[in-house]
Amino acid sequence: MTSFPSSGQLDPAVLRSRAYLSRVAEPASIPVWAFVQQVGPVAAADAIRRGSAPASVGSATEARRDHADPDIDLETAQRHGIRLVAPESSDWPHFAFAGLERCAIRRARDHERGPFTASGSGEPVPPLALWVKGCGDLAGIGVRSVAIVGSRAATPYDEHVTADLAYGLGGRGVVIVSGGAYGIDAVAHRSALAGQGQTVVVSAGGLDRPYPVGNAFLFERAAESGLVVSESPPGCAPQRHRFLTRNRLIAAFSTGTVVTEAAIRSGAANTAAHAFTIGRPVMAVPGPITSPMSVGCHALLRREPDAAQLVTSVDDVMAVVGSIGEGLPVAGLGTVLDGDLRAELDRLDPTARRVFDALPSRRPARPDELALRSGVSAVEVIRALPVLDLADLMDVSDAGYRIAARLRPARRPRTG
Amino acid sequence: MTSFPSSGQLDPAVLRSRAYLSRVAEPASIPVWAFVQQVGPVAAADAIRRGSAPASVGSATEARRDHADPDIDLETAQRHGIRLVAPESSDWPHFAFAGLERCAIRRARDHERGPFTASGSGEPVPPLALWVKGCGDLAGIGVRSVAIVGSRAATPYDEHVTADLAYGLGGRGVVIVSGGAYGIDAVAHRSALAGQGQTVVVSAGGLDRPYPVGNAFLFERAAESGLVVSESPPGCAPQRHRFLTRNRLIAAFSTGTVVTEAAIRSGAANTAAHAFTIGRPVMAVPGPITSPMSVGCHALLRREPDAAQLVTSVDDVMAVVGSIGEGLPVAGLGTVLDGDLRAELDRLDPTARRVFDALPSRRPARPDELALRSGVSAVEVIRALPVLDLADLMDVSDAGYRIAARLRPARRPRTG
Repeated sequence: MTSFPSSGQLDPAVLRSRAYLSRVAEPASIPVWAFVQQVGPVAAADAIRRGSAPASVGSATEARRDHADPDIDLETAQRHGIRLVAPESSDWPHFAFAGLERCAIRRARDHERGPFTASGSGEPVPPLALWVKGCGDLAGIGVRSVAIVGSRAATPYDEHVTADLAYGLGGRGVVIVSGGAYGIDAVAHRSALAGQGQTVVVSAGGLDRPYPVGNAFLFERAAESGLVVSESPPGCAPQRHRFLTRNRLIAAFSTGTVVTEAAIRSGAANTAAHAFTIGRPVMAVPGPITSPMSVGCHALLRREPDAAQLVTSVDDVMAVVGSIGEGLPVAGLGTVLDGDLRAELDRLDPTARRVFDALPSRRPARPDELALRSGVSAVEVIRALPVLDLADLMDVSDAGYRIAARLRPARRPRTG
Repeated sequence: MTSFPSSGQLDPAVLRSRAYLSRVAEPASIPVWAFVQQVGPVAAADAIRRGSAPASVGSATEARRDHADPDIDLETAQRHGIRLVAPESSDWPHFAFAGLERCAIRRARDHERGPFTASGSGEPVPPLALWVKGCGDLAGIGVRSVAIVGSRAATPYDEHVTADLAYGLGGRGVVIVSGGAYGIDAVAHRSALAGQGQTVVVSAGGLDRPYPVGNAFLFERAAESGLVVSESPPGCAPQRHRFLTRNRLIAAFSTGTVVTEAAIRSGAANTAAHAFTIGRPVMAVPGPITSPMSVGCHALLRREPDAAQLVTSVDDVMAVVGSIGEGLPVAGLGTVLDGDLRAELDRLDPTARRVFDALPSRRPARPDELALRSGVSAVEVIRALPVLDLADLMDVSDAGYRIAARLRPARRPRTG
C-alpha cells in the first residue's frame, strides 16, 4: 500500500477509515460523528461498510457505502498535494473545533433516544476529517484568526471596507479566514496576502477542483503561507448545502467573525449564526441604511439578546480578538470523566496533567501564561484545555482558565 | 401698562420679572436658576436690579442689569406675535423639563458651598422663561416627540434618511423637534410638515430675527401647526454658545433624540450628550464607515456604558418612543418634602394628590392609565408626575409609574 500523505505518524488503518467516512457521509451529520466518537473510526467505517451501523448512521451513509474507495481518494489527494488530517493527527485543530464539539456532544445526548432532525444549514459538529493544502499552522488555527465574510455580489463600499480590514489585520499577524468565492471572500484573501498576512480558504468542494476556477491562482497563493481546507474529499462538487455546512468551519476556525456586508438572509449571516452558536464573538460593520446589503449587518447589531459588536476599523477588531484565545469558550474531547479526583487525574495524559497542575485557583490565566507556568508549548496547552474543560477540572471565563470551582477553595489537589 | 401676551392668567409682575431675567442672564446659568427657584422671580429680579443678589448671580447678570427693559422686550414680542411663557404659566412644559430640573437641583446642591463652574455647552438646567410663537401644545411637548439632529453640511445620504424619518414620524403623530439651521434641521421640519406632522423649531436667538433668514418662511409654516421657541428674548443674536445651550432644550423637548449623521464633535453629538444627561433615549442611524459624517453616530452606538440605539426606520424609532411617556425618567419641582407621610401628602396640590391616589402599588401604570384611574386629564397627570417623583412618593421605571418602594408593600396610604 502506498504511504499516503498525512500529518504526523497516523495509523494507516485510521487514515483510510477517516477517508472513507469523509466520503460516505455528507458533512455535519451528528449521528455519524457521534457513532465515530463512540466506536472509533476503524470500527465505524467497518460497520457502515457492512451495513451494521445504527439506523440513523446507515441512512446517512447507505447511498455511497459501496462506492467509496478511500485509496482512490487518498491517491487523488496526493497527486494534488492535498493531505488528510484526522482528529487522531497531531495537527488536528482541537482548539478551533472545541466549540463545535461541545455543541455536538450536547445535541447527541439530547437526541440519544429520538431521531435526529436534519438541519438545512448543518448541525454544529466537527468534521470527520479535513483535506488540507498549504503550510499554515492548522493546529493553532482559531487562536488569532478572524473570519471576514460578506457578499459575493459585493458593493464597492463593502470591497473597500473588507480590503482595509483584511490588509490591516493580516499585517498585524491575524490569520484571515474566509470562503473561496468571488466578491468579499476573494477581496479578504487578496488583501490579507498583500499585507503579508496568512489566510485560510475554507472550500465547500474538493480541493482538487478549485471553485470558482477563476480563484484557483488565489488558492495557490493562499496555500503558500496559509491553508486551503475542505471537509469534502477530492472530486466533490461544491453543492449548495455544502456551502452552508462549510460556513460552520469558517466560524470555528476564527477567534471572531466580522460581517462586512450582508443581506438579511445570506451566507454571511449564516456564518455569523454559526459563530453565535459556538460562542465566538461576532462583529458587524455598519453601512448605509439605504443599502439592502447592509441590512444583515444592522440586524446583527440589534440582535437580542447578544448583539454583534460594531466595528469600523482594524483597531476595533483587534480590541475584540486581540488577546490570545481570551474570551473563547472551549469544549471537550471524549466523554466526561467520573469517579474520584485521583482517578480523574490519573486518566489525563501527561501533557494535560502538566497543564492542569499549572492552572491557577484564583486569577484566571491565559494559554500563554499557562505555557510559561507549565513548560508545555502554547500549542500543546491549547490542545489540552478542552480535555480539562470537559473533565470539569477547569473553569473557563472571558479572563482565562483556572481550576474548577468544585476543586476550590480547598487546597489545590496535587498527586494524591 | 399694556396687557402683554402670555398664556393663561399670569400675574403681570411675574411676567415682567421673567422677561427681565430672560434678558439679564445668559441661558443655562445654574446660580441664576437656583436663586429664582429659591426666592421667586419677582424678588430675584428686584435683587438683581438692585445689585443685592448673591455674588454668583450678580456676576452672571451685572453686564445687563441696568440696561434690560422687560417692557420693551414684551412689546417687541407682541408686535411679532411672540408670547412669553413662564414656569408659572399654565402651559409651561413641566414634563419636558423634568429631567433638566432634576439635574439642576442636584448640581445646585453639589455646588451649594462652592463656586459654580461654567460649562461651555451649558449646564443641564431649565430655562428661566420661553419666548414662543405658534399654536402647538407646549405643555404636552416631550410626551410624543422626537428630536432629529444632524449636520448643517449634510450629505445626500443624511438628507434622505432624515426626510424619510421625519415624514414617517410626522405622519404618525410624532412631533418633530430640531433647530432652525440649514441642512438636517430644515430637512427634518420640511419633511415632517409634508407628512402633515407638527414640528417644534428651537431657535438659538430671538424669534423676531429668524436665523438663518432663508428659513424664515419655514419657521412661519412650523408655527402654523407647531411651535417656534427660544429662551432668548427678542433681538438676541444667535451666538455660538447659545447654540450649545439651545441643544439642551432640543433634547428636553423630545421623548427621544435621533442622530442621523454627526461628525465626532458636532452640535448633533452635543444634543445627544444632553439627552444622555437627562436620561432620554438616544438613537443613532448608522452610515458608511468611510464617511466622516457617520463617525459620531457610530461612536454613539458603541458608547459605554449606555450606547445609543441603532435605528434604521420609522418603526425602529416608534419602538423606542412609541408609548406615551413610557421609559422617560421624570424629575421634580420645588424641593424634597420632609416629615411624615401625612404632612407630605397634605402638601400636594389636589390634582397631584388625585394622581398619587391613582398610583398602583405593583404593576407600573402609564400616564394615560393614570388619567383613566384618577379622572385627571392626561396633561394634568403629566404635570403632576414630577411633583410626586421628587417628593419620593413614586417610583419611575421603563414600565411606568407606581407608588414609591418605601410606601410598599405595606397597605397603601390613603388620607391618613
